Amino acid sequence: MRYPEKLLKLVRALAGLPGVGPKSAQKLGLFLVQNPDAARELLEGLEGAESLHPCKRCGNLAEAELCPICSDSERDHGLICVVETINDLMAIERSGEYEGLYHVLGGALNPLEGVGPEQLNLEGLFGRLQGVREVILATGMTVEGEATSSYLAERLAAMGVRSTRLAYGLPVGGSLEYADEVTLARALENRRGYS
Amino acid sequence: MRYPEKLLKLVRALAGLPGVGPKSAQKLGLFLVQNPDAARELLEGLEGAESLHPCKRCGNLAEAELCPICSDSERDHGLICVVETINDLMAIERSGEYEGLYHVLGGALNPLEGVGPEQLNLEGLFGRLQGVREVILATGMTVEGEATSSYLAERLAAMGVRSTRLAYGLPVGGSLEYADEVTLARALENRRGYS
Repeated sequence: MRYPEKLLKLVRALAGLPGVGPKSAQKLGLFLVQNPDAARELLEGLEGAESLHPCKRCGNLAEAELCPICSDSERDHGLICVVETINDLMAIERSGEYEGLYHVLGGALNPLEGVGPEQLNLEGLFGRLQGVREVILATGMTVEGEATSSYLAERLAAMGVRSTRLAYGLPVGGSLEYADEVTLARALENRRGYS
Repeated sequence: MRYPEKLLKLVRALAGLPGVGPKSAQKLGLFLVQNPDAARELLEGLEGAESLHPCKRCGNLAEAELCPICSDSERDHGLICVVETINDLMAIERSGEYEGLYHVLGGALNPLEGVGPEQLNLEGLFGRLQGVREVILATGMTVEGEATSSYLAERLAAMGVRSTRLAYGLPVGGSLEYADEVTLARALENRRGYS
């Protein structure tokens, strides 16, 4: 079996992507070497994406210092939705129901895996509460997500900031990333107050 | 919904790949912008693969004028295996059973879709039969693949070159219960004696 070394290198890179097995990687690699237009488009996409970095304020992806959401004056700057990951942020954006800002924690509290409050982007959140009337806690409906939201609700209450939690309406144990738009919209709509 | 334009461009490129739906494309795009090492590896893989081109003799992928198989003097140059695509060539290489050369047609005869003998790389095959003692016709076991093999067998016979066809039968590890009727009929018809 003697494949060209350059094809092998491309296939190895593809096999490192999530959800791409060795067979899919080979199929994709062959497709790309036989379809130069598709390969060029992907190449340019990757080159462009290299300049993306975390938004200084919320942790979302940004091309400038602030992300498109933080720098949008039409959005409600008195409302912050706290999510675990950028993928979760995008899932909520897809629902089209949310008009406020976000805050990306970078994960959820997980003492077993050594993720404590110091490992999450909490100080950034506490430092931007001026003029914020509500923080929506939209961490996952998992044990870790619940623990993170409870912890944050307590800390925020101590600072006199109102927080709400996404409604159960999302499947218990499910991750936000894979929820459908309607379910996410309902969950936002039915958010409940802590206490 | 305001994603960074550069992420959208990357996601669009990913969504153009075979077997990658819009949701997978978004997931892969987010993974790549958040994992610069994986993105860089893929970028370099794509850059390297740009220099791959069809082997001048057989149509396989090559970095030089001839592919690694055509330029391998250890392989049997008196045997040519005719396949529809490079993917088929690689499938046969994976079997580890074949020691001859290949010829990639670039498809199969399909009059309904306007693919006639002129659209396939046939002249290249007819021009390299000097010293070839057998041509194995390994086009697909489909209507189009069968038609292509029949056509080639006739043309090759007229040139005095022996051709053979891949065997029909049950797949190894397959159960009779789930085999289709036509495959079973062929497997019976082509039964071999023990000895």
